[in-house]
Amino acid sequence: MKFDDLLELGDIVDIRYPAKGFIVIKPYGMLAIKNLYRLFERELEIDGHEPVHFPAVIPERNLRLEEEHFKGFEGEVFWITRAGLNELEERYVLRPTSETAIYPMYALWIKSYRDLPVKYYLSGTVWRYETKSTRPLIRGREFLWIETHDAFRNESEARSQISRDLEISKRVIRDRLKLDFIMVKRPSWDRFAGAVDTYAVDTLLPDGKVLQIATTHYLGENFARVFNVKYMDDTETERYVHQTCFGIGINRILAATIYNHADETGLRLPSSIAPYQAVIVPIHPVSDMYVDRVTEIYSKYRLKVDRREGITPGNKFYYWDKRGVPIKIIVGKREEENSTITISTRSGIKETIPLGEDLDKYFEYYDDNIKQTLKIYDAKDLEDLKKILDAGGIARAPFCSVEKEGEECYRVIKERFKAEIRGVRIDVDEKPEGKCIVSGRKAEYVVYIAKQY
Amino acid sequence: MKFDDLLELGDIVDIRYPAKGFIVIKPYGMLAIKNLYRLFERELEIDGHEPVHFPAVIPERNLRLEEEHFKGFEGEVFWITRAGLNELEERYVLRPTSETAIYPMYALWIKSYRDLPVKYYLSGTVWRYETKSTRPLIRGREFLWIETHDAFRNESEARSQISRDLEISKRVIRDRLKLDFIMVKRPSWDRFAGAVDTYAVDTLLPDGKVLQIATTHYLGENFARVFNVKYMDDTETERYVHQTCFGIGINRILAATIYNHADETGLRLPSSIAPYQAVIVPIHPVSDMYVDRVTEIYSKYRLKVDRREGITPGNKFYYWDKRGVPIKIIVGKREEENSTITISTRSGIKETIPLGEDLDKYFEYYDDNIKQTLKIYDAKDLEDLKKILDAGGIARAPFCSVEKEGEECYRVIKERFKAEIRGVRIDVDEKPEGKCIVSGRKAEYVVYIAKQY
Repeated sequence: MKFDDLLELGDIVDIRYPAKGFIVIKPYGMLAIKNLYRLFERELEIDGHEPVHFPAVIPERNLRLEEEHFKGFEGEVFWITRAGLNELEERYVLRPTSETAIYPMYALWIKSYRDLPVKYYLSGTVWRYETKSTRPLIRGREFLWIETHDAFRNESEARSQISRDLEISKRVIRDRLKLDFIMVKRPSWDRFAGAVDTYAVDTLLPDGKVLQIATTHYLGENFARVFNVKYMDDTETERYVHQTCFGIGINRILAATIYNHADETGLRLPSSIAPYQAVIVPIHPVSDMYVDRVTEIYSKYRLKVDRREGITPGNKFYYWDKRGVPIKIIVGKREEENSTITISTRSGIKETIPLGEDLDKYFEYYDDNIKQTLKIYDAKDLEDLKKILDAGGIARAPFCSVEKEGEECYRVIKERFKAEIRGVRIDVDEKPEGKCIVSGRKAEYVVYIAKQY
Repeated sequence: MKFDDLLELGDIVDIRYPAKGFIVIKPYGMLAIKNLYRLFERELEIDGHEPVHFPAVIPERNLRLEEEHFKGFEGEVFWITRAGLNELEERYVLRPTSETAIYPMYALWIKSYRDLPVKYYLSGTVWRYETKSTRPLIRGREFLWIETHDAFRNESEARSQISRDLEISKRVIRDRLKLDFIMVKRPSWDRFAGAVDTYAVDTLLPDGKVLQIATTHYLGENFARVFNVKYMDDTETERYVHQTCFGIGINRILAATIYNHADETGLRLPSSIAPYQAVIVPIHPVSDMYVDRVTEIYSKYRLKVDRREGITPGNKFYYWDKRGVPIKIIVGKREEENSTITISTRSGIKETIPLGEDLDKYFEYYDDNIKQTLKIYDAKDLEDLKKILDAGGIARAPFCSVEKEGEECYRVIKERFKAEIRGVRIDVDEKPEGKCIVSGRKAEYVVYIAKQY
């Protein structure tokens, strides 16, 4: 099913808000988003992160301090130039990301090695004046995300955080949301503005384009030097902190979850974020008392009781199936008489079980059933590459270089296939065989190539 | 203790962010705020509200539609006039409140009486270019709040929501946060821009000024007519919806909680929002195993284990007392040998109890102990009023009118005492005795008078 149709079917967003690229997220979408936030925040907190709030506005001066960063964002920031009836003395930007808001404060907070590491997260909104065509949840001028900002004593501590960030992605995105992805180090020409290295989590959407849903950047000392974030180490030497930041694209992850798991009927939401994990459908003439008892007994799950009148049970089932509710709990007279419930999962299992029996295994079965697997194929030459991209897959190919020297070959891919070099896998160690798919030079890397959003 | 000192002592905010009126909320403050959000959101959801997301920007055209509303806010909005390198065709404001963002969408969503009521809430940020002097958490140019926006078939349904909004305030603010307040209907000269009636929750801060921490507005059909929010009733007649909106000042409620409950040592946070409800302090030579067991057994509470080395237990107690942690759990060798723990509450109880014994009663005792009671005194004449205001209290006084006819008397109060008529109590039915405290005319109302933030 088409992505936009799924958003409509599931009543996820409304795109008619009268400001281009800004959308309204409706309750069913927002409940899923709240669950998504909780999944990530819990993992981040277990990993030692704490929440902070930073202003939505960044003074122009601060944004300009890191030059490369400013150049990277100046074309896509919203400017606040007036307030009330006056021109502002100093203009603000609406934050497109928060490095330049946060790091001046880190300079005030971090003094000694004892203050490190600092691991904070912000759950919130950022704004970017996207000039490419916008798509709801996928590319907007306002989007919901989480950004962590961590500071460490040295490079090795910082780099080990990157691994942990990516582990967190695995635990939520793969294990809970059942989305498949690759973790890659981006080529040098595709780094975050101001970063030493950029690592990304890419998933594939059913239309054959990859979507970046999370990134971690190793910032080295780049921002620390500009914002003067220094600490005294245990030998009384002043050092710059080493920083990382991890951006988790909440809107995009919801988009990928909806789009990838859907079938011809409609949404299939993973039980970890489904607004309602189960819907109870009472069948006349079951007693209210029994329905209440069922609701009470299964109250550890997120439940909805569909008591709407004038709608047949069949239509209710169809309604909730379209919206991707994992399990329907059917309670009729027969169930009441036998103290049972009938479980019908979105994936087709139907069973009558004793009231009180745990439902976990049904959720597991349902979740396993919607699991996505990426379509990745080997490309030995450009002909292979074309076939794979045309079929909507990700190509794995030998490539000369992901540093500056490889940029020429990248341009060929970009121009001829409108595709991107996503980068080199970091969760799997891969040795290239043969020659660079473009130049025929010795291949030093195995890269992933795909069309992107 | 002074409010600003408490914020510093508790490490709640940092006011050094380089944009006037914008603050950073630090982890300890943000954890409390997250708990505060959850308390209110849970109550709102039980009352049938669902979460939505609306953009932070409102097109100028929309904001201008309701004239009185625009006039009320035009002096205090931030204007976004540029994006990237271009001037915007239509300017946006950063939302100062969301009526004009939301109601155009309600016009699209609401068609029939079957669609009503609509009860949605937004948890988020608003921005107002405050020209009065700003104070952290109390008056800022950016603040965190919740706003509900409800639409009903008629006035009586809408007005009954107002009572429910105020019940929700009671359940959270009085029962969980232990803050005392009055609920008043604001005088006609002090209504929300565009509202028919404004109802407010006012609490008193230790410096003798009242602080408005929540408001509910009955909007009547005012916005519905402007934004064309109509529905077909069951007789096929088109009608305008009746609307209410409820603003819950999260930052201000945190401020009032911190400021009111503090004592000479420092913060005393209610257990409902304390980032850590209990801190476990291991006393050498207790085993790690026993500390872990205690942590596990009390895991239903928000716990922190203070394993810091080189700090004496006494200093740890003092540290957590300053930060307002309700309970300290002391585990030493003796506790380990006897399978006990020693409870020491912030309010002075110290008891050794069997490991596993529930702590709820200690939290209850602690919470009851910090309970605030408003200082309200009767004022029979202006001399009384002066004394009460000087002593930092709220005066209850007979008053001629809270409609237009009383405005003259209000001006006297305002000019002579720099105080405000907060309004007429709605949670208690009060009959005035005697004459208007200012004019000597017949008193029609009992009003509350106080200095305000």
